[in-house]
Amino acid sequence: MVEFAVFGTIVGALGVIYAIYLARWVLRQDPGSEKMQFISQAIATGARAYLFRQYRTLALLLVILAILIAIAIDIPRGTYGLTALGFIVGALGSMLAGYLGMYVTTRSASRVAQAAATSGMGKALLISWRAGAVMGVSLASVALLLISAFYLVFKQMTNEWAVPLVALGFGASLVTLFMRVGGGIYTKAADLGADLVGKIEAGIPEDDPRNPGVIADNVGDNVGDVAGMAADVYESYIVTVTAAIFLAAILGLPAQYIEAIILYATLALLATFVGVNLLKTSGVKNPLSSISVAIYATIALSIILFFAGSFLLGIELWRALALATATSLGAIIAPLVVKITDYYTSYNYSPVRRIAEQAKISPATVIITGYGVGLMSAIPVIAVIAAVLGISYMIGYHAVPVQTFGEYSKYLAGIFGTAMASVGLLVIAGIIITADSYGPVSDNANGVVEMAGLPDNVREVTDVLDSIGNTTKATTKGYAIASAALAALVLFIALIFEIVYAVHKIIPGENIIEIMEKNLGVLQVINPNVLIGAFIGVSLVYFFTSRTLEAVGKTAMEIVEEIRRQFRERPGILEWKEQPDYARVVDIATRRALGEFLIPGLAAIIVPLLTGLVLGWNALAGLIMGAIVAGVPRALLMANAGGAWDNAKKYIELQGLKKTDMHKAAVIGDTVGDPFKDTSGPSLNPLIKVLNTLSVVFAYAIVLANVAIGIYPFGLLPL
Amino acid sequence: MVEFAVFGTIVGALGVIYAIYLARWVLRQDPGSEKMQFISQAIATGARAYLFRQYRTLALLLVILAILIAIAIDIPRGTYGLTALGFIVGALGSMLAGYLGMYVTTRSASRVAQAAATSGMGKALLISWRAGAVMGVSLASVALLLISAFYLVFKQMTNEWAVPLVALGFGASLVTLFMRVGGGIYTKAADLGADLVGKIEAGIPEDDPRNPGVIADNVGDNVGDVAGMAADVYESYIVTVTAAIFLAAILGLPAQYIEAIILYATLALLATFVGVNLLKTSGVKNPLSSISVAIYATIALSIILFFAGSFLLGIELWRALALATATSLGAIIAPLVVKITDYYTSYNYSPVRRIAEQAKISPATVIITGYGVGLMSAIPVIAVIAAVLGISYMIGYHAVPVQTFGEYSKYLAGIFGTAMASVGLLVIAGIIITADSYGPVSDNANGVVEMAGLPDNVREVTDVLDSIGNTTKATTKGYAIASAALAALVLFIALIFEIVYAVHKIIPGENIIEIMEKNLGVLQVINPNVLIGAFIGVSLVYFFTSRTLEAVGKTAMEIVEEIRRQFRERPGILEWKEQPDYARVVDIATRRALGEFLIPGLAAIIVPLLTGLVLGWNALAGLIMGAIVAGVPRALLMANAGGAWDNAKKYIELQGLKKTDMHKAAVIGDTVGDPFKDTSGPSLNPLIKVLNTLSVVFAYAIVLANVAIGIYPFGLLPL
Repeated sequence: MVEFAVFGTIVGALGVIYAIYLARWVLRQDPGSEKMQFISQAIATGARAYLFRQYRTLALLLVILAILIAIAIDIPRGTYGLTALGFIVGALGSMLAGYLGMYVTTRSASRVAQAAATSGMGKALLISWRAGAVMGVSLASVALLLISAFYLVFKQMTNEWAVPLVALGFGASLVTLFMRVGGGIYTKAADLGADLVGKIEAGIPEDDPRNPGVIADNVGDNVGDVAGMAADVYESYIVTVTAAIFLAAILGLPAQYIEAIILYATLALLATFVGVNLLKTSGVKNPLSSISVAIYATIALSIILFFAGSFLLGIELWRALALATATSLGAIIAPLVVKITDYYTSYNYSPVRRIAEQAKISPATVIITGYGVGLMSAIPVIAVIAAVLGISYMIGYHAVPVQTFGEYSKYLAGIFGTAMASVGLLVIAGIIITADSYGPVSDNANGVVEMAGLPDNVREVTDVLDSIGNTTKATTKGYAIASAALAALVLFIALIFEIVYAVHKIIPGENIIEIMEKNLGVLQVINPNVLIGAFIGVSLVYFFTSRTLEAVGKTAMEIVEEIRRQFRERPGILEWKEQPDYARVVDIATRRALGEFLIPGLAAIIVPLLTGLVLGWNALAGLIMGAIVAGVPRALLMANAGGAWDNAKKYIELQGLKKTDMHKAAVIGDTVGDPFKDTSGPSLNPLIKVLNTLSVVFAYAIVLANVAIGIYPFGLLPL
Repeated sequence: MVEFAVFGTIVGALGVIYAIYLARWVLRQDPGSEKMQFISQAIATGARAYLFRQYRTLALLLVILAILIAIAIDIPRGTYGLTALGFIVGALGSMLAGYLGMYVTTRSASRVAQAAATSGMGKALLISWRAGAVMGVSLASVALLLISAFYLVFKQMTNEWAVPLVALGFGASLVTLFMRVGGGIYTKAADLGADLVGKIEAGIPEDDPRNPGVIADNVGDNVGDVAGMAADVYESYIVTVTAAIFLAAILGLPAQYIEAIILYATLALLATFVGVNLLKTSGVKNPLSSISVAIYATIALSIILFFAGSFLLGIELWRALALATATSLGAIIAPLVVKITDYYTSYNYSPVRRIAEQAKISPATVIITGYGVGLMSAIPVIAVIAAVLGISYMIGYHAVPVQTFGEYSKYLAGIFGTAMASVGLLVIAGIIITADSYGPVSDNANGVVEMAGLPDNVREVTDVLDSIGNTTKATTKGYAIASAALAALVLFIALIFEIVYAVHKIIPGENIIEIMEKNLGVLQVINPNVLIGAFIGVSLVYFFTSRTLEAVGKTAMEIVEEIRRQFRERPGILEWKEQPDYARVVDIATRRALGEFLIPGLAAIIVPLLTGLVLGWNALAGLIMGAIVAGVPRALLMANAGGAWDNAKKYIELQGLKKTDMHKAAVIGDTVGDPFKDTSGPSLNPLIKVLNTLSVVFAYAIVLANVAIGIYPFGLLPL
């Protein structure tokens, strides 16, 4: 049998080399004047300082968790600390992804600004895009490399290699969760604080160097949007692919089905290598359509390769083609979600225009209507997810040869079909991250242009690049949420089967099908344990959203007071006579963001563990379903309402209505949308996955505890 | 065996007589000057016109549905049109409840105003309270009367009497849904429109007769808050009690268990007769504490009567006492929810003060923080519901003698325990409606005082009464949502068993326990049909919220334009020289509210029916669970965020900061909160119950269709 995992390891390593090549190309570009470099440097320093402090804060927690995993999981299962190792490597990977994103973006910003000043749009676009590609290619490559290599190594060492593989995803998603929350609070509090005092009270433009919050605002973009989104898509990739592999292993599918997952991931990465080179940059009028072409071409090429690759799998051809079909279905979700997001958040369509229209009346109706648009936008995305879920289930049901679970085999085969769809959605992540990372690079470049006082025609170029970046950022959010939803569903099934296997080991003598029947039997929606669990899951989503929103408000308030104080005490600042104290604002944002990010993050660990240990594993399953059912639409609502408010404001600006009451009303909408779309909404993705991966990793310990206190399998309330 | 249903019928009839006595007392009071009567009259005319047009619009739909029910349900089941009859009577009951609420409130407003002017606080409080008691006593009495009488009659006519009884609830909740949506859009669009132009642009006070929107605004209070809330609690009562009776019947419990439900409801009504007379009015400093005393005393008396009544049931005493305990647990939810709501929405505690604090920065942070408070407020309420659910389940599990369902019997006994808790929460509805209806009466009285130009010291009295009314209104919302949640859970189980019985009749020969196992077996949370259904349920909640929010925005926009036009074209209005054209604004609000209320209402009928018929009954079950899990916390979020914003504004006003930027920021929060708390949030209660009751009523037809197209029991996707 061909070991596609070896192939995956090699292509992953090649991808890392290719990313290094791209990075060197970007760094060879002219970094601009000393002033431009100085500004870039200040932003980079602030961002690095924040990330390192964040990582230090997390270090202790990660070490404690690793020890806990080693004791509670690796020792009883005899897995040589591999689960703890997977967890730590996954966590380090997310940290690296975040750091890399920040490094590339801050390094390339001044280079893009300089290119815009000296060579015009084409070159500036190319540098931003390649900087994005450094991220896209390296993250997808590292993810594939890690998964393939760990799979190869782990399965040599133990039969119980599947849980350590999922631990990779747990580590990645946990760190991402903290990065999303901390970075999200930082970026939006700094943004809000800087804008409220600068733009609204002092009447100076965005990114004006007189604003003491301007560096913190730019640092925030890097630690929130860049580091956060990079880590988010990276962890989704790891979580989804390892969950699918886990499922294949636990369902007893032939090894070729695991190999198929790795093969498709590898082929999609190869397609990405091609895709990042397809961007047309010379003589481009509308860079957005060039970017779309590159994305669609990559997806199309991936799909062709999926079908071509089916011939190599060494399983019956019709089954292989069915797998390729299910995988392709997943890949097709991406453009559909992009289109839907575009409809609800772009000012070319009716929803955003309706919001802008309401600005004629009052800020309140802008909020009400935008919230309504956000709610509505969740529906078609969910419909797409549900449709793909249903179709890929049918494909798997008929084509995947699960055999070891008696009458349940067909059903599990169907679930494996949905897992392949989720793999299809995720393995094209490289090109999506490329397009997404392009956004903050041009945003930062725009900031450098403004702060360095470059001429207006340069600003026009970077403005165009920046506005497209906003679109790619918005659509990536939709992609990330859809992928989180699919990943969560696959992981959820993985959890049920991990429970079954844990019981099989812990209570010897029972037949595995009997155990499964017993476990599935208590998973009914009318089981009071499941229902109470579901309410806990929804509550967790609400708690998380509430805490992160309020944290932004509180932190912004401190920043506003600090900026007001500086303007008041040192009136020379606004007259360009004094340098503002940027560092104090950076320090406040850092301190508060790190002060606020622990409690929600710890809740995501402690609540599911306690629920599982005390109320029973079926309450835990209910918790996860509740979190998915409440969290996915809420994440869409928050991302899209935020995007729609943002663009309603831009639409009004385009009509030359800046500084009118109408514009002010729209600005309030935009400001409400900021933490919706960049703090609370994005935190829900990793939250859902942390709940899931944590449960899979700790399933063994939870079952042990349930059996010990006598609540297995019914939970606290007898059934 | 004692027929407590006869007792219930008699006490219900007595209650109606008592309500008439109270109404005559209120109407005997001095209605005030001609001007005051004229204003009351104008409001009453507008409200009556709206309600009648709304009822006419609904009439056709109700007739079509009744015919459909007769054909699809009564004919195949041989129930002599009783299901259609139950549906129509239930619907008429809700209409009557709405009309009665409007009638009493508008009639008593000028009387309360006059009492405030001539006799002071004590008398004004007494009239408002007794006007509220007319509503509370009559609705609880009519509900009990209808249920008891129908139960007595239906069970003489057919063994299949249980579904027709639930149809009573379906009719009631469907009409309520339309009233909530239509009235909610009307009231908030008129309020918003009148305030935006009047208070903010023209700078005239609320309820100023120069504002062309002032009558529409007051009409809105009556058709939205009064008619809507009255119908809401009334239908919750009917739905919950009939669902519990249905469950007892379908579980094959001895008739005493059905009698117990009716007995407890009757005893609670007797306690209410006493409770409405317990209000201390003379020499009262703080009317709110008098009202709380009356409510708590009624609840305490009810609980004592539940335990005393247990001795009459004729079942083993320990079982009877267990039933009384479960029922009392439900009754205790009410004060707990009141306390929680108070904490999150009153300016005496930190959450509202945090929101007010943010008004120093910007309207945007007011919105963000208030939304966060709303999210957080849902969690303790859900925790209370979950705890009562768990405890009453355990009580039922051990004490209720279900026997006909083999090993499932204990579980179903547990569910009956939760049904008793939900009955306990609902049967105290009389006193809750009394306290709630008191609010709009004093609100209307306040309007009359302002518009009739009565002196300031009168306004002070009605202001106190009005502000307490806001508190009782806010807490009633929490009560209504908690009761909707419990009712929905009971109904959900009723649905599953109705499906089981339908299958038992449609596919002869199968053993009922086998059928039940098969049906429960496909209700697992990992079933793709259930999951897709859950996503449809969440989507429906989102669709509903989005449509109602946007409808308020759109309608308000038209009203704003009309009021601006009147001020522009007839400048004499603001100088007291010209009479504004109130009727045009009333007409716009009426027309638009009725134009917008059909689509969401129809969606609530069509989506679940289609889901059940096409995707299968298990997708329908998933839909209902999704709607409950998403809808209950969302209803709490919207009600409490709205209340918190409202009171943050009041808190700032109390500090004498009216007309400052801080106050303006808080007003924007309050305006966003208006449709949250009075349109979209309250519509979710009847939505959840319509989905449930509709499904129970149509279960038979759905199973027939599922069997016919071959998707029973697995749904569209095979399992």
